[in-house]
Amino acid sequence: MSLWYDEIHRGNQRFGLKVRQTIYMGRSEFQKIAIVETEAFGKGLLLDDVFMTLEQDERTYHEMLVHPSLNTAPSIKRVLVIGGGDGGAVREVLRHPDVEHCDICEIDGQLIEVCREYLPEIGSAWDDPRLTVYVGDGVKFVEEHTGEPYDVILIDGCDPVGPAAALFGEPFFECLAGILSRDGVVAIQSEDPHLYNEVHLEIVRRMRKVFGHAHPYYAGIMIYPGNTWSWTFASRNVDHLALNLERVARIEETSEYYNRAIHAAAFAQPNFIHKALT
Amino acid sequence: MSLWYDEIHRGNQRFGLKVRQTIYMGRSEFQKIAIVETEAFGKGLLLDDVFMTLEQDERTYHEMLVHPSLNTAPSIKRVLVIGGGDGGAVREVLRHPDVEHCDICEIDGQLIEVCREYLPEIGSAWDDPRLTVYVGDGVKFVEEHTGEPYDVILIDGCDPVGPAAALFGEPFFECLAGILSRDGVVAIQSEDPHLYNEVHLEIVRRMRKVFGHAHPYYAGIMIYPGNTWSWTFASRNVDHLALNLERVARIEETSEYYNRAIHAAAFAQPNFIHKALT
Repeated sequence: MSLWYDEIHRGNQRFGLKVRQTIYMGRSEFQKIAIVETEAFGKGLLLDDVFMTLEQDERTYHEMLVHPSLNTAPSIKRVLVIGGGDGGAVREVLRHPDVEHCDICEIDGQLIEVCREYLPEIGSAWDDPRLTVYVGDGVKFVEEHTGEPYDVILIDGCDPVGPAAALFGEPFFECLAGILSRDGVVAIQSEDPHLYNEVHLEIVRRMRKVFGHAHPYYAGIMIYPGNTWSWTFASRNVDHLALNLERVARIEETSEYYNRAIHAAAFAQPNFIHKALT
Repeated sequence: MSLWYDEIHRGNQRFGLKVRQTIYMGRSEFQKIAIVETEAFGKGLLLDDVFMTLEQDERTYHEMLVHPSLNTAPSIKRVLVIGGGDGGAVREVLRHPDVEHCDICEIDGQLIEVCREYLPEIGSAWDDPRLTVYVGDGVKFVEEHTGEPYDVILIDGCDPVGPAAALFGEPFFECLAGILSRDGVVAIQSEDPHLYNEVHLEIVRRMRKVFGHAHPYYAGIMIYPGNTWSWTFASRNVDHLALNLERVARIEETSEYYNRAIHAAAFAQPNFIHKALT
C-alpha cells in the first residue's frame, strides 16, 4: 500500500508523492531525518518533513550547484562544500580530476551516516581519498579557518530557516570572502525565485555587496516548490561565462542536465528578476 | 472553506491547489469546463479536470508561446492561432502593432464564451478589431484554408489526447506547412520534457521532418506537471535566434518573463534532450 505524502507551500499549494515505504526515520540533534521510497523518483531524503533530494531527480540540482563554478574558476585545486550531507555535491566536485582536495563541513553527522547507509547512489564519492569530512557548524568552520584559501566554495544548505539560516547572512558571506582565493568563486543555493522572490533577491543583493559581482542562475527542479530553482555565483574577479572548455567537455560527456549551452543559458534572468535587480 | 484540488500525474505524483470557490462548471460538446478561484494564483480554468491556466501564473506560458516567433519572423502581418480558447495567446499576439490581422480557430465555442465571461483579465483582447474568431476544428480550418498564407502560426492545444490529439500529428504539420508563408514560423506547445519525454521528442522530430528545422525551447510553469514546459519553433528559413530588436524592445517593456536574454537562453537544450535529439 502506497500512501500520499504532501508537502505544503504557503498554505495554499502542495506537491505530493506516493511513498511505498519509510526506510528510516529518526531525529538528530538538529532535525528530523527520513529516508523514504517514492514510486515516482526512487529513494530520497526528507529533512523536517521537506523533500530534499530523490534519486531520480537529484542530478540537475547537484550538477547546477557545482559545475558553473568548477568550470569557470581558474584554479579548482581546493574546494570547500558547506552542508551537502547527502553527498551529491561532493560527488559532482570529485568528478573533476583537477580537484586535488575537497573539504566538506556538514553540521549534522547523523545525516551523513544515514545518507551513506541508505542513499549510496547519491553520495557515491565518500571514499574518495581527496575528500575530508568535517562534522560541525559551517559558520564556525569558516570563521576559524586559517589554512590555505579555497578556490571554490559551495553552500549547499537547506532553506534559510532552522540550522541553515546563518548560511545566508552577510556576516557569513564576509567570512567566506576572507577564506576565498583571489580568483575564487562561491556558489550558493538561493531558493525559488517565484514563491520566495524576496528571499532570493536578498541573497543576490547581499552577495553583490560582499563580493562585488553576483549572478543568479536558474534551472527547473521537479520536487522543489515553484517551477524553478536558483543558485547564485559570486566572485571578485571571475567571469561567470568564461568556460574552461576542457573541463566542460569532460563533464558534459556524462552529465544529465548541465552542458555548455545550459551554462550560459542558466544565467539569463526572467524579466521580473532582471527588473528587480537593475 | 477552501478545499484541496489535486491533479495527479502518472498515478504517483500530484499537484494541489486550495480552491476557494467554483465559479462555473459545465460540459461542452467537447470537454468538461470549470472556472475556479484558487488561493494561490487567482481565478483559473480547468478542462477535463486539468489546470490549464491561472491568472497569476499564465503570463510565462503565453509570452513564451507567442514572442519567440513574433520577434523573429521577418513579417508578422498575418497570424493564426489554433486552440487558445482562453484568449491569452491572442492577447500577446495583438501586443505587436506590426500584426495587421489575427485569426483564431478554437474548436469549443462554449469555452470561448465561458472564458470571455469569467476570465476577462486573461483574454483581454477579444474586441481588438484585428482579430477574427472562428469556432471550428483547427485541422479542418487549416486543410480548407485557401486565402493568403500566414506569417506565424501558433498551436495552443491541450495535451495530445482528446480533442487536441490531431494537432500534434504529421498530417496536420504538413497542412500547416502548406498555408505558411515562405519565411513563416510555426510554434507549438510541446509538453513537459521530463515526465512526457517521448511525447516531447516525437513532436520535435515530426516538425523537423516537415519543416526542415525545429528547435524546442523551455521555461518553467508552476502549475504544469514536471518543472519545465516546452514549445517548439519550426521554420523552413527563419533563424530562431535572429531577433527583431525593435519588436523585442517593445515587448520586454511590459512582459513578465520574456526578454531578449530569455529568448536565446530558452533554446538551450538540457543534456538529456541534446543527446536524444542529436
